[in-house]
Amino acid sequence: MARIGKLVVIGVGLIGGSFALALKRARAVGHIVGVGRTRRNLAAALKLRIIDEVSRDLAGTVKDADFVLIATPVGQMPAVMAAIAPHLPLRAVVTDGGSTKRDVIACARRFLGGHFPRFVPSHPIAGTERSGAEVASVELYRDRCVVLTPLQDTRADAVKRVRDAWKACGARVVRLDAAEHDRIFGTVSHLPHVVAYALVNALARRPDAKRLFGYSAGGLRDTVRIAGSSPEMWADICVANRDALLAALEEYEDELERVRAAIDSGDAAELRRMFEQARSAREKWLVKKRP
Amino acid sequence: MARIGKLVVIGVGLIGGSFALALKRARAVGHIVGVGRTRRNLAAALKLRIIDEVSRDLAGTVKDADFVLIATPVGQMPAVMAAIAPHLPLRAVVTDGGSTKRDVIACARRFLGGHFPRFVPSHPIAGTERSGAEVASVELYRDRCVVLTPLQDTRADAVKRVRDAWKACGARVVRLDAAEHDRIFGTVSHLPHVVAYALVNALARRPDAKRLFGYSAGGLRDTVRIAGSSPEMWADICVANRDALLAALEEYEDELERVRAAIDSGDAAELRRMFEQARSAREKWLVKKRP
Repeated sequence: MARIGKLVVIGVGLIGGSFALALKRARAVGHIVGVGRTRRNLAAALKLRIIDEVSRDLAGTVKDADFVLIATPVGQMPAVMAAIAPHLPLRAVVTDGGSTKRDVIACARRFLGGHFPRFVPSHPIAGTERSGAEVASVELYRDRCVVLTPLQDTRADAVKRVRDAWKACGARVVRLDAAEHDRIFGTVSHLPHVVAYALVNALARRPDAKRLFGYSAGGLRDTVRIAGSSPEMWADICVANRDALLAALEEYEDELERVRAAIDSGDAAELRRMFEQARSAREKWLVKKRP
Repeated sequence: MARIGKLVVIGVGLIGGSFALALKRARAVGHIVGVGRTRRNLAAALKLRIIDEVSRDLAGTVKDADFVLIATPVGQMPAVMAAIAPHLPLRAVVTDGGSTKRDVIACARRFLGGHFPRFVPSHPIAGTERSGAEVASVELYRDRCVVLTPLQDTRADAVKRVRDAWKACGARVVRLDAAEHDRIFGTVSHLPHVVAYALVNALARRPDAKRLFGYSAGGLRDTVRIAGSSPEMWADICVANRDALLAALEEYEDELERVRAAIDSGDAAELRRMFEQARSAREKWLVKKRP
């Protein structure tokens, strides 16, 4: 790939920080500037050599950028895009790390203006329940999938530059239509997060919550691991992907109702059939797939 | 503890097999006989030296037993108890590894007859989504909690012998009232299993299930790990603990409805508040507790 001269990472958390680290290791970038809301997080990123420089002047720092990654929660992207649009040089490509794509695209169309053809929407399928620069990892994207959802009017050379950058991080890159992307991730990612948050809250609401959690074991712990994820990020995602998530949630609630009915009628044979089906599906599609 | 002369393990899977292994290592047992439905599993248990002998004659082998562990799915316990009751010597204590306690106690009262005072209901809070003798582990109970739910008419010396055996396996032993036990585990264990099974099935039911699962990552994988658990065992548990599980499920569905309503109205602030509450509860009660 062509080396990136100056990279600006807006939001130096797990996603942005890991991108910076991986490009550094690949010797694919010259200078990295980090921008963000939290002084302490940026200081940590600098200390950990994730970035080379901290800037609090977004407009000033993008004006000679070659590559801009917006890795903030999706709710902040309108303000970020509006702030950088008038200052982006023609040579700069812009991409993002958002978990939803239709809303990010609508936002870019509205706020990036003439720069829109050089914006390549992307979603790296990586992450953990932890957040912040301190958990960034040079290996985060190794063998992970990154989905690009370019539009008709996205420039091919911009797509290539963004694809090459993710590949340099060790990722596999695939393309999807943005609506298809949102439908898929509403089901396989956003729904499980809602399920995990709701399950913890159903227990936490009880007056004897402390005692209840005290008797829990590895089953509950793994089931709700992702309820440790950033509340701000996930609230934004839920709102941004509202229709697809509500559709997925409805199918899940129907499924839960089927199990509830079988428990209610004491139908062990039906429960066993349902659980067998779930076990087989998990075995076939989740256990054997690479991590 | 007093050494166990002859131990009979009925159902040599993860729970029964690990009990046998741990007592052997503690030199707390003389001879171990395994009984079960599946010839291949018993042959594996013998080969792995989990048990010393396989018996297909349940009545014949319990007649000189000192200690009997019933570690079958709860649905098989009536038949097992009815078969052993007439042959148990007075010196034998009987315990079980069932995840529900009121139904096991009712079953023991009905089928163990005069031997009931020497039956000590127990529930080891340990296990994984895998089953069978081959996954038994000498370390399974190390630092884990085992709940005993003895009754008014359970003999104190029987409770002591069963408690000592679990302690010899490395477990901490606590006592609970049976109804309280079922209420607690209906919430912290049985509900998460139902949630995980239903979530997998909601995806598996889709015509494009294969593709959907192909885009999933670690979040979904952990959330549904326990959907790999034994369908037979969990169908039995759901039916046995019907009332407590339905109550827990209803609270969870109410919680899910609150999230759904907030998504539906696009209320990011409310979603953030809910997710923050879940994250704090998880942090406070699940992350810091020992595994």
